[in-house]
Amino acid sequence: MSIVLGPNQYGKAEVRLVRVDRDTPRHRITDLSITSQLRGDFRATHESGDNTGVIATDTQKNTMYAFARDGVGSPETFLLRLARHFLAEPQVTGGRWRAEQYGWERIGPGADGGAAGGGADAAGHDHSFVRGAAERRTALVHADDAGLTVLAGLRDVTVLKSTGSEFSGFPRDRYTTLPETDDRVLATDVTAWWRYAPSFADAAGPADFDERFAAVRALLLTTFAELHSLALQQTAFAMGRAVLEAFGDIAEIRLSCPNNHHFLVDLEPFGLDNPGEVFFAADRPYGLIEAAVQRSEGGPDNPEHPVWSTIGGFV
Amino acid sequence: MSIVLGPNQYGKAEVRLVRVDRDTPRHRITDLSITSQLRGDFRATHESGDNTGVIATDTQKNTMYAFARDGVGSPETFLLRLARHFLAEPQVTGGRWRAEQYGWERIGPGADGGAAGGGADAAGHDHSFVRGAAERRTALVHADDAGLTVLAGLRDVTVLKSTGSEFSGFPRDRYTTLPETDDRVLATDVTAWWRYAPSFADAAGPADFDERFAAVRALLLTTFAELHSLALQQTAFAMGRAVLEAFGDIAEIRLSCPNNHHFLVDLEPFGLDNPGEVFFAADRPYGLIEAAVQRSEGGPDNPEHPVWSTIGGFV
Amino acid sequence: MSIVLGPNQYGKAEVRLVRVDRDTPRHRITDLSITSQLRGDFRATHESGDNTGVIATDTQKNTMYAFARDGVGSPETFLLRLARHFLAEPQVTGGRWRAEQYGWERIGPGADGGAAGGGADAAGHDHSFVRGAAERRTALVHADDAGLTVLAGLRDVTVLKSTGSEFSGFPRDRYTTLPETDDRVLATDVTAWWRYAPSFADAAGPADFDERFAAVRALLLTTFAELHSLALQQTAFAMGRAVLEAFGDIAEIRLSCPNNHHFLVDLEPFGLDNPGEVFFAADRPYGLIEAAVQRSEGGPDNPEHPVWSTIGGFV
Amino acid sequence: MSIVLGPNQYGKAEVRLVRVDRDTPRHRITDLSITSQLRGDFRATHESGDNTGVIATDTQKNTMYAFARDGVGSPETFLLRLARHFLAEPQVTGGRWRAEQYGWERIGPGADGGAAGGGADAAGHDHSFVRGAAERRTALVHADDAGLTVLAGLRDVTVLKSTGSEFSGFPRDRYTTLPETDDRVLATDVTAWWRYAPSFADAAGPADFDERFAAVRALLLTTFAELHSLALQQTAFAMGRAVLEAFGDIAEIRLSCPNNHHFLVDLEPFGLDNPGEVFFAADRPYGLIEAAVQRSEGGPDNPEHPVWSTIGGFV
Repeated sequence: MSIVLGPNQYGKAEVRLVRVDRDTPRHRITDLSITSQLRGDFRATHESGDNTGVIATDTQKNTMYAFARDGVGSPETFLLRLARHFLAEPQVTGGRWRAEQYGWERIGPGADGGAAGGGADAAGHDHSFVRGAAERRTALVHADDAGLTVLAGLRDVTVLKSTGSEFSGFPRDRYTTLPETDDRVLATDVTAWWRYAPSFADAAGPADFDERFAAVRALLLTTFAELHSLALQQTAFAMGRAVLEAFGDIAEIRLSCPNNHHFLVDLEPFGLDNPGEVFFAADRPYGLIEAAVQRSEGGPDNPEHPVWSTIGGFV
Repeated sequence: MSIVLGPNQYGKAEVRLVRVDRDTPRHRITDLSITSQLRGDFRATHESGDNTGVIATDTQKNTMYAFARDGVGSPETFLLRLARHFLAEPQVTGGRWRAEQYGWERIGPGADGGAAGGGADAAGHDHSFVRGAAERRTALVHADDAGLTVLAGLRDVTVLKSTGSEFSGFPRDRYTTLPETDDRVLATDVTAWWRYAPSFADAAGPADFDERFAAVRALLLTTFAELHSLALQQTAFAMGRAVLEAFGDIAEIRLSCPNNHHFLVDLEPFGLDNPGEVFFAADRPYGLIEAAVQRSEGGPDNPEHPVWSTIGGFV
Repeated sequence: MSIVLGPNQYGKAEVRLVRVDRDTPRHRITDLSITSQLRGDFRATHESGDNTGVIATDTQKNTMYAFARDGVGSPETFLLRLARHFLAEPQVTGGRWRAEQYGWERIGPGADGGAAGGGADAAGHDHSFVRGAAERRTALVHADDAGLTVLAGLRDVTVLKSTGSEFSGFPRDRYTTLPETDDRVLATDVTAWWRYAPSFADAAGPADFDERFAAVRALLLTTFAELHSLALQQTAFAMGRAVLEAFGDIAEIRLSCPNNHHFLVDLEPFGLDNPGEVFFAADRPYGLIEAAVQRSEGGPDNPEHPVWSTIGGFV
Repeated sequence: MSIVLGPNQYGKAEVRLVRVDRDTPRHRITDLSITSQLRGDFRATHESGDNTGVIATDTQKNTMYAFARDGVGSPETFLLRLARHFLAEPQVTGGRWRAEQYGWERIGPGADGGAAGGGADAAGHDHSFVRGAAERRTALVHADDAGLTVLAGLRDVTVLKSTGSEFSGFPRDRYTTLPETDDRVLATDVTAWWRYAPSFADAAGPADFDERFAAVRALLLTTFAELHSLALQQTAFAMGRAVLEAFGDIAEIRLSCPNNHHFLVDLEPFGLDNPGEVFFAADRPYGLIEAAVQRSEGGPDNPEHPVWSTIGGFV
């Protein structure tokens, strides 16, 4: 028995790339943080510091900037281009390319600038923008022997229902003190990843990926808003199911939803009632609900798609 | 000579208060982080741990929650109510109450939920919301022997111009390497505080403060968007001047604007030009431009209003 | 084909638990952030909001605090106790319990308080402490049908070599501009997880886990310090190998090491040389080196231990 | 009446400078984040974008790096050198230079590396280091018409007493629910700034500033540890007084101390007592205690030193 190198990957992380499309006076900006990680035959550098095959992480960064000269398109198509470029090197047998996109809106002609919306790309200033919500759009391309897999997602879409949420019927043991409730605030920061079926991923262009992202995001929000919730688990599953029902070429979706507790403040000591109006929003601890929604042929009895083991990285 | 207590203040910081107005099925939410700090005769606790006069910070927190039972109104009016309450105690001779407000938008009926806007409060879901931009609205009430002063502001309004910004004509010394440019990306996170004249602060109700905030925010954004910028200093000053010109009852305004550098990437090594299209967005270091805009009677030759020395706290 | 629930887990995250051991006047403190996540038969709550089997996340939190009344021991033993408790419920078939521990040192009798060390637990104040380095000790217990697995680790151990690091011999393509160097600053924030063989995990008590943690940490640091580095990959692999060589009951170890770039500042424009003395420490982007070190019987050709797919969670 | 420019300053913020002293094989590293801000006659750039007098923030950054070629010395002496350099320009009439220093310790020869200490600079590796506590040392030089003022300080020195702290005797009103306690956990993150008398600041060299910093830090910690606390206000004041008593050439000191609440968990529902052993460490809200300690000739009836109004910046 000896000590050997196991799975490994390396690359450049969080490359901040801002692309200005300025072919007309009406500029467009694409604001990304991109991470490139390569897998393959890199034993020599680990075992002896022989870097013969190590495409420098600096080179990976340069490649992103050089490719951006041709335009970014959608995050998914840009990552696919990077993936194919690096996979052309013989020592590279796989990898993982990931992007987070920050949203910008045109500063509007009306009184409320960007944050209150307008949003309509038809209006607003030609080359002045205001940052939108803290949420980010995400994309990931994973490559292994089986080929390329494309994920899309979003992070930290913070949503809240001020009613229409219950939580009751749970078991009570020696350590249970939580009262049942038929009306609570439900709040979470939705993070989701969905995996495109190859039929979609192979054929889609930038506009397809953009449009699909917007449609999935809207569906997630609408489902959160409209479902009367008996548990955050129910809400999360319903959000995922709605996406799979609407889009046959999305193979599966995973959601991670912290339960951002809003505790009703006890105002009785002050001689006041509190009919669901005054809340303390806690930071920690928080509930954490995580679930995959799948199609039955890829369900619990089937092996997990390998892309998921790489989502969290090694740590 | 002896060692004595100098200026001091104490209180409860970052109380997270969420108020749901639910008198009709169309809920409204107000999401605040509030800090209360009292000044006055607190020598005994400092010198000997005698807490006879020390209104517990826990009590300050409770007071916020109890008052919220009556509704919050605008952040400014809520802070004024807190200030007047605590100033009624004889040992309290001054203080500082501050709020940050997080924005929420109704989840929309259309495809783009909240982040892309709609915003129009007329549309959207009755009790389901999505968090808006990362920026926060701020408010501060300061009390001293001279009375109450009201500031309003905003934080981290991130804006960017993809053209319409130059920087040249600066002096060149031994340590100057920066090239002059007649076209650069200009990006900043606007933080601003403006001081209301007593004439406004004393008479305004919640709707007045809300409306004024929205109008100032829009004017700051519009000015940023429309000015052809020769320096971030010029832009910041113009933004402040526009506000003072538009609103005679705003006494002065201060702006703090980091220069979020976007460096044009040198693509020449790759045989490519880069006509203002591919940028590296740097985190640190950043420029930092800070300026007060005042009316001439309160200008450089006049003493600074005491509220400003408390803005940054002691540290 | 239908839409079904895939892998899922839920629980309470980042429960901040501080335990003071005060059986003698010489107190000891254990400062933890703990996350408990359960897996099992939770289809009903996802599909219909039936919470009959859902042990409330609030109950999971309460259980931690109640168990802490008996003492915490080491993070690993505390998590094992939690795991066994929840696994006794029939609907719970697996789970994941994780802790981060913050370090505290006694405020010392000497001039340099705690941060400069002393550290020796024999010295220092009985009940006054100062927070140590930003790094955290971590532990994780994973349960599935195959039983319990114990990982230990550390996060954000920031280390730097001011010489003794090279990087050269890497391939040069169209996008390569990085010069080779035979003397650079090498800096990283080490995050590592190692998996204990069942032989150790099943028999170890709190003192064994504590002692082993300290020994692994020291070995990682010493190896980083002493190896003349030709690549961060080589350093990371050597650190892991040293651990496996020293401890036969550690089955494998994974390291994630950002390359915190320190760029030599070009002082030539100012008429100065820079013989490895003045550096700009960059925030982003950074290199990212990740590797598993294994024993040959668990090597690349063998299936991955299932614990690793849960390390990053779903997202 | 017209609209005019009020107080203003500009510069480069958070320049990350790492200096390696390598004249012998036993290297030393100085790790700083430096901010330079100039004040003076900068009306033209604000009013019309005329940058004739604007020393570019990029030039300010370059100057730091160039000066570092000669060595850094202590943060205070380095900032003084920067201040004097920029003040030599006629349009610069004042400014503010600030540094934060990160601590590093040599990786030790023993089993416990750096975090557990050793610390002794006599031991440990020649050129391999581990980052120390999260706390930072700070320094600030302020220049105005009255000359140069030097502050030194520290940030986020997190300390905790597991006993020896009470809080009682405070007034009870309608909104008071906090019980009195004669034994609680007291925890805070100490931030302090002290102002050196010109007699010290003008004569001190790097070693003097370093030694003084270490002595003040130790005294703050020791006082926190040894005082039986009746209120955090009492503790903070005692810490400051101890410094002024020990060092006649420190003119005044300001402390900002959040009260990091540790709430005793109620275990009664689980049939358990909790004799000061199991705590929930809360994030927000927190108490916030801020106080200046002064000498009587500079006490409450005397005007505040102008440096303090610049500590928090404009916002």
